[in-house]
Amino acid sequence: MKSFNDLADFSHDEVEALLDLASRLHNHPEPQALQGKVLSLLFLSPSLRTLASFQAAMVRLGGGSFVISPNMSIHGLESRSGIVMDGVAAEHIREAVPVIASYGDAIGIRAFAERRNLEADLADAEFSELTELLDKPYINMESAINHPCQSLADWKTMNDLAIPQKGGKFVLSWAYHPRPLPLAVPAATVHMAAMRGMDVTVLRPEGFELPESIMNKATAAAEVSGGSVRETDDRQDAMQDAHVIYAKSWSSQHHYADRTSEQELRKGLEDWCVDEPWFENAQDSCRFMHCLPVRRGVVVSDAILDGPRSVVIHEAYNRMLAQMAVLHQMLGTRS
Amino acid sequence: MKSFNDLADFSHDEVEALLDLASRLHNHPEPQALQGKVLSLLFLSPSLRTLASFQAAMVRLGGGSFVISPNMSIHGLESRSGIVMDGVAAEHIREAVPVIASYGDAIGIRAFAERRNLEADLADAEFSELTELLDKPYINMESAINHPCQSLADWKTMNDLAIPQKGGKFVLSWAYHPRPLPLAVPAATVHMAAMRGMDVTVLRPEGFELPESIMNKATAAAEVSGGSVRETDDRQDAMQDAHVIYAKSWSSQHHYADRTSEQELRKGLEDWCVDEPWFENAQDSCRFMHCLPVRRGVVVSDAILDGPRSVVIHEAYNRMLAQMAVLHQMLGTRS
Amino acid sequence: MKSFNDLADFSHDEVEALLDLASRLHNHPEPQALQGKVLSLLFLSPSLRTLASFQAAMVRLGGGSFVISPNMSIHGLESRSGIVMDGVAAEHIREAVPVIASYGDAIGIRAFAERRNLEADLADAEFSELTELLDKPYINMESAINHPCQSLADWKTMNDLAIPQKGGKFVLSWAYHPRPLPLAVPAATVHMAAMRGMDVTVLRPEGFELPESIMNKATAAAEVSGGSVRETDDRQDAMQDAHVIYAKSWSSQHHYADRTSEQELRKGLEDWCVDEPWFENAQDSCRFMHCLPVRRGVVVSDAILDGPRSVVIHEAYNRMLAQMAVLHQMLGTRS
Repeated sequence: MKSFNDLADFSHDEVEALLDLASRLHNHPEPQALQGKVLSLLFLSPSLRTLASFQAAMVRLGGGSFVISPNMSIHGLESRSGIVMDGVAAEHIREAVPVIASYGDAIGIRAFAERRNLEADLADAEFSELTELLDKPYINMESAINHPCQSLADWKTMNDLAIPQKGGKFVLSWAYHPRPLPLAVPAATVHMAAMRGMDVTVLRPEGFELPESIMNKATAAAEVSGGSVRETDDRQDAMQDAHVIYAKSWSSQHHYADRTSEQELRKGLEDWCVDEPWFENAQDSCRFMHCLPVRRGVVVSDAILDGPRSVVIHEAYNRMLAQMAVLHQMLGTRS
Repeated sequence: MKSFNDLADFSHDEVEALLDLASRLHNHPEPQALQGKVLSLLFLSPSLRTLASFQAAMVRLGGGSFVISPNMSIHGLESRSGIVMDGVAAEHIREAVPVIASYGDAIGIRAFAERRNLEADLADAEFSELTELLDKPYINMESAINHPCQSLADWKTMNDLAIPQKGGKFVLSWAYHPRPLPLAVPAATVHMAAMRGMDVTVLRPEGFELPESIMNKATAAAEVSGGSVRETDDRQDAMQDAHVIYAKSWSSQHHYADRTSEQELRKGLEDWCVDEPWFENAQDSCRFMHCLPVRRGVVVSDAILDGPRSVVIHEAYNRMLAQMAVLHQMLGTRS
Repeated sequence: MKSFNDLADFSHDEVEALLDLASRLHNHPEPQALQGKVLSLLFLSPSLRTLASFQAAMVRLGGGSFVISPNMSIHGLESRSGIVMDGVAAEHIREAVPVIASYGDAIGIRAFAERRNLEADLADAEFSELTELLDKPYINMESAINHPCQSLADWKTMNDLAIPQKGGKFVLSWAYHPRPLPLAVPAATVHMAAMRGMDVTVLRPEGFELPESIMNKATAAAEVSGGSVRETDDRQDAMQDAHVIYAKSWSSQHHYADRTSEQELRKGLEDWCVDEPWFENAQDSCRFMHCLPVRRGVVVSDAILDGPRSVVIHEAYNRMLAQMAVLHQMLGTRS
């Protein structure tokens, strides 16, 4: 495996094989599999779960990792081309990234959307610029438009809970949040659920449609898997017979770089906070999913998060197992 | 071992067995004992020795750890219940703590006293709230009212130096400090020395009596061990025939949440800085102990700290050995 | 090996033996060589490559490390003697350094020049003060006047590229930089190249002569190795038949502690930015070396850095291999 950048680079069967490996590593630990192997972890954006779960994953497989993060001396890595670096930034990504990668057998990189240009972010331009500097296997630890580790963990979580693939009803719902958030998780999630073969409904208020390229990619995956993808602002209709509601806030594509107008648009949408009444027409066992961190009382009620519907801790734990499978495939001697 | 939260949860013999294990691991390293095992380290308060000694301990036993600290992206983890999280904090401890714990085989947590409410801190309310979120073995890396790793290391240090258990005279002395400090170390220390069977004297100026619940717990331990506990402000009397003086500053219980009045009370107490004259009536070999960090010229003189009485580096080193024993018991396959 | 503080502590043959070991560890990994061994890493100055490469090196040899850095709770470690510590600093180096060292089998320390006193920095006074507190093997991860890990990696890089030892022409060139920089890398580099047996030319503008003690040490090394050392401000003359140009900015010894006058002196020197015309009379294959981080368009042009002359990524990668050799010698059971 040369990269783990997008679930779309794998077939449905390949994803299931990765998840089988994840379960096997959980049941039959291999604490010597990656002995002496090193994972470089480059965080250009903050992290808690990703940081912890990758470090833990490498230890469990007998290897190790090191972390370079914005808290260290790399504030202001320069990324522009042809620039005279006489300002604050003392290092350019063209040196920093290859060097950090060179110390590892693979590198994980996190770089959130810059949110200056929707097209650039939809094309994952910044992340591509970073990975073009590499001659090592790499892992996308969340880019402007993708979060494949989260999607792999979420797929596993639904398998663990026996939520149907074909015929399973998956609702990705926009939720209120005080700040405009990136498109990475909704984009990855709608694609993952479609690729898994589910009937996917994107539920969102007017103005928060997912960009066309995201919907098209999910639809293409559904065509292969036998699932479906649609969008609505009708909560009752969306939740009808749902097996899962996955809540996530994201920013409007119509005011992508303009925080003030975006803020204006989300005014009055505070009732987009998932709560028990949402589940009235859903499957009795309908689950609540979220990638965390989640704001209680804003994105979802305490009652849901603390109740039996919530599987958010299970999802977060599966991050580690899913990543162990990726690392085992990428760095194991037989891969 | 399901938790290492309080020395009082163990018998005298169990503590001695842990210290035997610590010595055995020092003399006969077991670099494969915890292969593939992970310790989660959650620092809600700053650390140097604890951070370093736990990471080193895990490596020496063949495992590893990861650190989540306030320097990272977790400033402002919300801990209040029933709150609408529309402010700065993006994550609640009810998600963060179980998730961080889930990546490890055990978790160490540090959370200093909030110093808003004496009763809450004496009951270790915040730490209990955190550990109630766990279904994993955990280690108290210093809470509002306890520091069992320090106490275990200190007990070992006295054993190493052949300082008597029964009949040993242990003085815990208040010392000056420019800021009011927590009760965790004095509370743990007076209990540890009493549990070890020593005759313990708490030496402190008027107004700095240790809270009754702390003294009662130490007295109960002394009743079991055959030791004794008393309190005085008479330095000469306290130091008579002492084998050990353990210096530590702590805040007055009478002005616990009121820094200004507390500051007023400690004015003029700058001579509570341990120096050679203090030792006039002590055992010739009387040792100076401190948990570090220590302010030179404020808590203790350079002469004492740099002289033969001081065993502070030995104590700090024993942190690692004591914790290796705890980790071996907690995570080793035969435990 | 009790310390790795200065290449001058080793003979030419000993350095070559270390580099053979580095190559062997690259070709034949030894992921169990340092099982259970711990390297303490104390960064009193910021780091990216050194931090990453040492951590990776320990993992590759089967051990581990921990990092204590200025980003943590050790801002303002006190280092003055006889001081009453009633200010910000809560801990003195006399406790912190021995304790941090005690948790490891060896310790790496980084402490840049304080740049208050040229003589003190030339004598590496601060670093010596730190290492006098140790009874453990230690590694200089860059001090006021030395950077032996960088020099060992640079020597290896030239070996890898078959750049001649005797007869090899090595140019160490001053370069422009917006801020005055330490003398550590130029001092280590001029000595390394001379010790390797090369004909070394220090190229610098008027006012940026390297201090006499640095030149004398390099000249003494050249006398043993059969190389030579000279200084000039004539770029054409310096670059004649050069095999390597190593660029680095450093501050003027004439205004060492006075940033304003130093700034004045470097005004108008912006053309000391290495670019293709510099290579007119050099060997066709003349290489560009730099320790990184490097400011593009300031110290060196994009064309050189992105072109075939540049070996800066290779140098940085060799940091890890060189350090693995040092650690293997220092901590391996047969050493």
